[in-house]
Amino acid sequence: MPELRRDPIVGRWVIISSERKIRPHELLQGQPPAMASSSVCPFCPGQERLTPREILAYRPPGSHANGPGWHVRVIPNKFPVLQVEGALDREGLGLFDRMNGIGAHEIIIETPEHKHALADLAPQQVESVLRAIRDRINDLKRDSRFRYITVFKNHGAAAGATLEHSHSQLIALPVVPTTAMLELVGCREHYRLKERCLFCDLIRQEQRDGHRIVIDSADFVCVTPFAARYPFEMWILPKQHAKSYEDVNDASLEWLARILSDALHRMDRVLASPAYNMVIRSAPLNERRAQSYHWHLEIIPKLAQTAGFEEGAGFHINPVVPEESAKFLREADV
Amino acid sequence: MPELRRDPIVGRWVIISSERKIRPHELLQGQPPAMASSSVCPFCPGQERLTPREILAYRPPGSHANGPGWHVRVIPNKFPVLQVEGALDREGLGLFDRMNGIGAHEIIIETPEHKHALADLAPQQVESVLRAIRDRINDLKRDSRFRYITVFKNHGAAAGATLEHSHSQLIALPVVPTTAMLELVGCREHYRLKERCLFCDLIRQEQRDGHRIVIDSADFVCVTPFAARYPFEMWILPKQHAKSYEDVNDASLEWLARILSDALHRMDRVLASPAYNMVIRSAPLNERRAQSYHWHLEIIPKLAQTAGFEEGAGFHINPVVPEESAKFLREADV
Repeated sequence: MPELRRDPIVGRWVIISSERKIRPHELLQGQPPAMASSSVCPFCPGQERLTPREILAYRPPGSHANGPGWHVRVIPNKFPVLQVEGALDREGLGLFDRMNGIGAHEIIIETPEHKHALADLAPQQVESVLRAIRDRINDLKRDSRFRYITVFKNHGAAAGATLEHSHSQLIALPVVPTTAMLELVGCREHYRLKERCLFCDLIRQEQRDGHRIVIDSADFVCVTPFAARYPFEMWILPKQHAKSYEDVNDASLEWLARILSDALHRMDRVLASPAYNMVIRSAPLNERRAQSYHWHLEIIPKLAQTAGFEEGAGFHINPVVPEESAKFLREADV
Repeated sequence: MPELRRDPIVGRWVIISSERKIRPHELLQGQPPAMASSSVCPFCPGQERLTPREILAYRPPGSHANGPGWHVRVIPNKFPVLQVEGALDREGLGLFDRMNGIGAHEIIIETPEHKHALADLAPQQVESVLRAIRDRINDLKRDSRFRYITVFKNHGAAAGATLEHSHSQLIALPVVPTTAMLELVGCREHYRLKERCLFCDLIRQEQRDGHRIVIDSADFVCVTPFAARYPFEMWILPKQHAKSYEDVNDASLEWLARILSDALHRMDRVLASPAYNMVIRSAPLNERRAQSYHWHLEIIPKLAQTAGFEEGAGFHINPVVPEESAKFLREADV
């Protein structure tokens, strides 16, 4: 059973994934693990027997569950970092706090085509992916054990992907990650002082200023943040205040799919299709004091020359001015 | 002039290093930059003219500044992320906050021998390195512009090192990094409730429990933390309460050098001499409310199979139980 442990100094929860006894030599430096080619890819149509049974799939009438025909498919992760079954058994051990590693870990297979990246998909297909994520969150949030759902994508081996076939991941957690809690506290404090949403204020300021805008569409805006940790980091924010991703409506999803595709195309153009991480930052579940939060999506290209410094120095050093990043992205020939 | 910018959501300061206009292609994926070999190494004896003039050097009587003969040498970084000269010019821009990138960025060259890693050095030499760091902090803290000094080491290209010759870095900052602030707040809150230091409590609990102890020496203890973010992460803590590294006395430095060497030998043995990051976590400078803080040193091996997940998921997943890590390290044949 995996375990959740809390650092007593800063309150950060960490998943200790003890399922498999790892020997030190398995962790040694070397090339990233080789990715499965399409011939044995468990995410390809026709290979559905290689994965756990599907939780959700968008497929035409007449096509059968766990067979081919789907265009988006959601399955439990075969090697989950948390387990769905069991009780939390929260426990204090002197200064320390722990609970069982209860949660859900799902994979959203974004396309039947092995070779297509998210940026290669038609906007309608991206929209289906975004809808599948929304529908899964709305289902999972009925489980009262879960406090937070993180949705993320590791694209490329350098960004932590271990399978080539394009997919996102979803992890439902019984705790709120420190980053999410810090953001929530910042939003609450701003609302308490000003009776306005911090992110809504930020969007207005960015629109007035213009220098960090990458794309300004009907419902969403894409910016490079003022204090970006990474070169070419991008945030996509809904213009209308909304605390949770899962409340997004169908019309908005269409716009989100378009701006996300556009942002990825620009990044691919400027940075020659880099590895990247993407994460949806949304309010904690069933938390009444989260109204002042404003969900958004972060895209972080994984660039070789910027690795390593943060762990060492303990803070971020960004070698590219965010306004320069925005200019390159805005002017990209897409 | 580099710049410090504050994220308005979580309050995190980031260095935006705008000195050199970086073109996107310079950031692209690829092999880490090739490291200078000893023939052209600016940190080797005899090549002192290739570096800025030394700030501090331990050298025998009769040897001349900026010439060979030294056994530890401290120089300004030739490519500093912050600049010493200038005024902070703190400024608000609507929601955003910025100041000029004022600070110090120094390199501690740990040995005259190009091929020796920190773990290869005699304990007396390690002690000299630790003393040089202490002496530099005590000098820099007289500059009232500085709020925090971070000391760190990136060993190996995978950990962010760009020069092979063994060295540490020191950055004096006019702001307190978020991580340091969060730790300080945790320590203050514990002290307020219990009138005891949180880290002192933690050391006592670890000693009683024993499962996460790697080395227990006279003045220091080395443990794998209960909620370790990374496999084989180690903390070295002084047993006697002390908020700041720079207050450590000569007798303690001798013990610190020994336990640090021992810990590195054990890590090298178990993980085949991995790349690693090391960071000294100490109290903010000239901060009267920091008495409840307890300085310590963190060692984080950079292991291929654990990269990428944190950026994606937004929290840490550690595939090795800290008690298992401690057992491997404790039982290492050194």
